[in-house]
Parts: sequence; structure tokens; C-alpha cells
Amino acid sequence: MPVSSPDPATQPGGRNLDPWYDNYASRTSGLTVSEVRALFAVASRPEVVSLAGGSPFVAALPDSLVRSAFDRMMREHGPEALQYGGGQGIPQLRERILELMALEGITGASADDVVTTTGSQHAIDLVTKLFINPGDVILLETPSYVGALGTFKSYEADVRHVDMDDEGLNMESLAENIRKVRAEGKEVKFLYTVPNFNNPTGVTMSATRRQEVLDLCIREGVLIVEDNPYGLLYFDEKAPNAIRSLDADHVLYLGSFSKILSPGVRVGYVLAPHGIREKLILAVESSILSPSSLNQWLVTEYLEGSDWRAQIDTFRHTYRERRDAMLAAMQEYLPQLSWTIPNGGFFMWVQLPDTLDSKQMLPRATKELVAYTPGTGFYADGRGHDKIRLSYSLPEPERIRLGVRRLANVINDELDLIETFGTFSNRSDDDNRFPSAPPNIN
Amino acid sequence: MPVSSPDPATQPGGRNLDPWYDNYASRTSGLTVSEVRALFAVASRPEVVSLAGGSPFVAALPDSLVRSAFDRMMREHGPEALQYGGGQGIPQLRERILELMALEGITGASADDVVTTTGSQHAIDLVTKLFINPGDVILLETPSYVGALGTFKSYEADVRHVDMDDEGLNMESLAENIRKVRAEGKEVKFLYTVPNFNNPTGVTMSATRRQEVLDLCIREGVLIVEDNPYGLLYFDEKAPNAIRSLDADHVLYLGSFSKILSPGVRVGYVLAPHGIREKLILAVESSILSPSSLNQWLVTEYLEGSDWRAQIDTFRHTYRERRDAMLAAMQEYLPQLSWTIPNGGFFMWVQLPDTLDSKQMLPRATKELVAYTPGTGFYADGRGHDKIRLSYSLPEPERIRLGVRRLANVINDELDLIETFGTFSNRSDDDNRFPSAPPNIN
Repeated sequence: MPVSSPDPATQPGGRNLDPWYDNYASRTSGLTVSEVRALFAVASRPEVVSLAGGSPFVAALPDSLVRSAFDRMMREHGPEALQYGGGQGIPQLRERILELMALEGITGASADDVVTTTGSQHAIDLVTKLFINPGDVILLETPSYVGALGTFKSYEADVRHVDMDDEGLNMESLAENIRKVRAEGKEVKFLYTVPNFNNPTGVTMSATRRQEVLDLCIREGVLIVEDNPYGLLYFDEKAPNAIRSLDADHVLYLGSFSKILSPGVRVGYVLAPHGIREKLILAVESSILSPSSLNQWLVTEYLEGSDWRAQIDTFRHTYRERRDAMLAAMQEYLPQLSWTIPNGGFFMWVQLPDTLDSKQMLPRATKELVAYTPGTGFYADGRGHDKIRLSYSLPEPERIRLGVRRLANVINDELDLIETFGTFSNRSDDDNRFPSAPPNIN
Repeated sequence: MPVSSPDPATQPGGRNLDPWYDNYASRTSGLTVSEVRALFAVASRPEVVSLAGGSPFVAALPDSLVRSAFDRMMREHGPEALQYGGGQGIPQLRERILELMALEGITGASADDVVTTTGSQHAIDLVTKLFINPGDVILLETPSYVGALGTFKSYEADVRHVDMDDEGLNMESLAENIRKVRAEGKEVKFLYTVPNFNNPTGVTMSATRRQEVLDLCIREGVLIVEDNPYGLLYFDEKAPNAIRSLDADHVLYLGSFSKILSPGVRVGYVLAPHGIREKLILAVESSILSPSSLNQWLVTEYLEGSDWRAQIDTFRHTYRERRDAMLAAMQEYLPQLSWTIPNGGFFMWVQLPDTLDSKQMLPRATKELVAYTPGTGFYADGRGHDKIRLSYSLPEPERIRLGVRRLANVINDELDLIETFGTFSNRSDDDNRFPSAPPNIN
């Protein structure tokens, strides 16, 4: 607030109604309303079939499992669960997390190197806080998780997309990006990757490619931040082992209970090299003192007292059924389009005809009672107008079918309009330096 | 990690064993192990009477209240509690928070302007992220909350202590600090204050002083961040109304359920002017997507289904009894010292003879099975060697008595040693620009 005009009531309106506008840190300009957030409001109306969002189907988790975990927690750890905890997270949970990670090939890790967080978004935030000065470079996939992009932006990172092919990150593009960054006199602070059932594409990095990416990153001294919230939710065959399973020193590994148990508990975790682990704990303490003891104990008791592996199988079967429903509906109602075939996770990535603008089409779609996520949110550079992300995790198969039918009507109506009146005049120009087709396209 | 030597195994040891040392952001050097953290480890051994820490006595909360809140939550809001929520927090809880704030004179606020957070430390972190560029100035009390100091440091703030007197922040010092900052060509981004039962001093700002501080801050265009975790835990008479009750536009108000219910749920909140509120929600989303729905619903059902006002009374009476026990023990065992008489909250601030160093004395104290918090952690400028913070919130009255007796032995032994061998050679020089005696001293 300027000294000359300290009272908000006397501030001139116009440019901005917030009298503290001039006081914010420079990073705050990077905090903008994400497209996903705006969508949550629209899509939450019950009559809308939401293929947007990315919420898990928590109704597949029997109440009784949560209740009995809570009962055991109160009986055996009540006072601890209600009290402050340590910044690193409770040891019993960190031991259990080792079992979880072992399912993806990560063995020989120590609970000492695990840090629990308030969901893995918190881990993304803290890792960025630890490593990124304004202007520092982060490499990531094309497209990439909208929540990570937002956090990177909030720390004023210089975010660069690496091209993709059928097996994940393209090696030439990765090497070229590192070279280019260094030619500019900068350093790559880390490579952020979601190798399993990527959000938004559903694409999985091959085992060979994981080794190649790791080898290059070791050679070039680039830290890998491997974000793996969906890995255990495979449909047909298991995903390749985590990159972290191949190397302990160059990989920060992020996991979460949001998709295999409940996002309402906000429990995520990081497995980190020693030095980074120490800094991470301090960053947790600085940001929240300690993660919720109650939620950590609840998750611990859930893992100790229930057949959580069987519950993950239940989730897997639920999501596979829904993925199948979406594939069948796409084939039936939108056979002229192309899309990825996810082998796990929550998302499918759809290529629209280049004449369509997924963001401009959204209001019409919600009017037709279907919602999706426009592709633009998943790029830092304005691409994605001709892509949409569809999520099949939350709606029942019949609703998925209905949603895709409605979507087909909207798309076909738009195409008719364009045929009659020409393309939209105000969509942003495509950036043609990169191939715009997503990989693994159907 | 330097390009020329990318493999941790080939790194020279020596300066730092962390191969990623050179990759951290500049702010990361501000993340250091807090004295409070190190103490938690020492003081957690059961044979040690801990007058350190600042944990609430959660055992005063009947299990049945938590269990019945959980049951109602699962019955009426199970799927919502297990799912993601909005970044601002659930509306039902935000409505309830209005009732809580009304107890401290804040009326006419809207639930739209409340944002829930992962404890109020999270709020401190997000507010700092929103406002502080490296080198920006924050004014705060002398001494001030160690957790806030750590967070401010982690954003590379330029932190300045304002002198205190019997009624709280000294007006001349506050005005002088603002003048001085501006003479340096800088701006004060905000004034951080804990006006009720301050951590660490236990001192409360008078009603008159609140109005004076507010008037000056309005005149000078300085935002006030009012942190009030202890306000409802008064002993004899209520604390004056919150500063926020006097003005809605210049005050960011922070509250918490940690001390009136449970810190294990990590639920705090902010009441913010509109423009800041909008940015805060985005900052919450960027850092954790959404606060725990489960914990928010649990708190909501606790507030709706139990006599929470009576429970706060129970806490108040418990802590008053313990404060009294500590006062009596201090009078009996350490009558030669001076200390503050807190009228609420968890902490008493003790002035040691100037020849003692509270940090150096701590290992001897823990050997004698008593722990406290050295004063130095509560200053950004190295002062506090001759102060200690004692907490009476967690131990039973008899343990408090035992702890103070042990502390008296340690202090008297130290004084004997000094009389025999002279003062410690390696304690840091005191900064005598400011009076070192805490206000409201007994």
C-alpha cells in the first residue's frame, strides 16, 4: 500500500480493487486461478457429468475400514494422534511406507530417508522451495501436471517442456534442453516427471527409457523428481519399476495415499537422498510445524489392520472398468478423434481437430451438462488448445457413457458451426516448433 | 551438483557431504535446525521434566468427544471427508469459525473471508510467501515466536525487533522502526504480533495500545498480521478484544484449533481482507491443493455436537492451575530471579543473572532431568542468552514443581561455578542497544 494513500477507502479504484496490491512479493503474480479450480465449481453441479477433476472414487473404500482404523488409533495412540508430532512424520508410518514402495521395486531404502507431507502437492511445493531461485530451470514432460506447473510458477521457475514419444521423455529433446539451458549460462535444477499413467496423458515411461533418462541425468548431474501417485493403479500389467529403484542418489521420489486410500487425509511422502532429506524436514517444519498426527496414525492403523493390498485391487478393478467404459464410448461416439489408451491411473488425453479450441468450447459443454479439462492448463507455453483431458476415475460407467455422448454432441455441433462460419477468430496461434500430437495416440 | 563431477560417489568430502549442496536455492541457507526442534528430542525422554516445547495438554480432552465427532462425521459426511475439498476450506467450518472469533470481539465478518490452513504455522508461511521478497522488512515483537522467525528467515526477510513495554509494543520504537526502514529506501511489508499471552513472554497487549498500534499502522499503511492462538485461554479476566475487531481492512487475523482442541488435526484459519483472501486461497492450492477434509469435518462436527465452550473452560482451568504451580515453585526455589506473570496461554519468561548463558546451561539441565527453551531462539539478532522460556502447559503441577526445583539446582550450581571460576568465555556479546529486561517482569 503506498504511503501517500494508506487508507483503502481512499484508494482509487480502476486497475485493482485490492489496496494491498503493491505490497505483494513478485512471486505472487504467478499465483493465478487454475483452470482446474474454476472447473471444480462448474462440475460440482450434480446434473453435470464431470470428466474433469481427478478425484478418486472414495466410495470404493468401505466405511468399516476407516472406522476400525480410527478405533484402533484412538485406543492405542489417542494422545499421540491428538498431539503435535515431529517434522519428519511418525516412524511407524514411515516404516509402512517402505512396504508400499517395495511394490514398485524400491528396496533397501531406510525409513530414516522418508519424510511425510500434507499430500504430495506439499512435497512438490517444498522441493521447489528448496531448489528454485527465480529464473532457475525445471525440465518437465509435454504436457505436465497442472498442479506442479502452478507451484513451479509460484516460485518463478523457468519451466521448459521436454518432447515426448511413445516411451515417455524423448532422449534427444532431453539432452538438447540441458545443452540449451547451459548455453544460456543457467543450470537445470531438476527434471520433474510422472512416469506412470501420467497426468494428463495417461502415458507410461518404458523400462528402457527410465534407465536412459537416469543415465543421462547422472552423467549431466541433474536431479530427478519422480512423482508417482498412480503407480499401483495399473490395469493389465504392472508399470515398470520406479526410476528410484535404479538409483538412490539422483532421485527424489514422491508418493501419496490420495489415490490408494483417501485424499481427504492429505498424507503424501518423499524418499530423499540424505542431504536433501535433512533440508526437507526443516522445510516441513517451517511450513506447517508437523504433518497431522491424527491422519498419519489413521493411515498407519489402516495399513496395519486391513488388507490394503486387496483394497488397491478393488480400486484397480473399478478404474479399469471405467477406463474400458470410456474407451468403448469414445469408439462409439467419437470414432473420428484420436486418444491415448491409459494402462492405469485416472486420465485419457484426447486430440481434437485443430480447428477446435477446447477452452472456448467448455462453456458450451457445461451447458450440455458435461465437463472436461482443456489441454492448455498442462502447458507452460500456451499450447494445448486442441487437446482435452478426460478423467474416468469418479463417474460410474453409465455416466461416463452419457458424458462422452454429450461431449460428442458438443464437438460435432462445434465442427458444424465451423464448417458453416469458419474457424474461431480469437484463438491463440499454435506453436509449431513441437509436434502437437500426444504420444501413444489411438 | 557441478557438471564436472556429477556422481556423488566421486565428490570430494570435506566441506559438505551433500552432493546437491550447490543446487539449493539461496533461501535454503535460512533453513536451520531450530533450538526448539533439538529440544523436542531431548525432552521427550520420560524421566526429563520438560518445561520446554509448547504442547497443549490434550489429555484434558475427553476421548468420547473426539469419537462422537468422528462417528457423526462418517455418518453424515463420510464421502466428503475422504475426498479432496476446495482450497478455501469447507464452508460449514468457516461459518463455525465466525462464532469462535466473535468471542474475541470480531463481529460482522463473513465466512467468505475465512481461509482454513494446515495449522496456523501454514498461514504464517503462506502470508510470508505472498508478501516477502528477499530483503523485505517485517517488524515484530521483542522477543517473538521462534516458528515465525524461522519461516520469515526461510523467505529471506529482513526482520526487525520492536521494543516492548508493560503494555506490549512500544509506540516510539514502532514509529522509529518504520521511519528508519523508509530512510533506507525500504518498505515495511507487515507487522507480526501475538498480542495475547505472547509466545515466549506471556505478555498481553493492552486495549489502549491495540488502538494506538492500529492507528499508527493505518496512518503509515502497514499491514498487521495478528496471530492469536492463545486468546481464549485466559485465566482471570478476558484478554482485550482482538485488533481485528477494531478494523477489517488493515489486519490479517490468524487463529488455530491447536490449543483449544488438538494440534494433531492441524487446522488453523485466517480472516483476511478480500484481496488478500483471494491470493491466500491460491497460495493454499499451490502448497497443498486443499486442507484435509477429514480434519476439517472432524473439527466441524466437534463444534456442532459438543459443548466446546465448556471444554475451553476446562483447558483454561487446567492451565491456570499449572501457571499457579509454576509461580509458587519459582517463588519458593528461585526467588532471586524475575519472571513474567502470564494471564493466559502456556509460557512464562524468566530473566537470568547476566552472567549465565541459557544455551550453554541446557546440556547440564537435561543431565539434571529438566528442560527449558533458551531465550536466544526468540530473537533474530543474537540476544536472549540471559533469558529462558518456561512452559507449564503439559506437565502436571507436581512435575512442574519438581522441574523448577531441578532448574533451581542447575542455576545455583552454575552461579557457584562462575563465582569460583569466572564467567563463560565463549558466550556471545550482548547487544546493549535495547533494554534486555522483558516487560511485565515480576
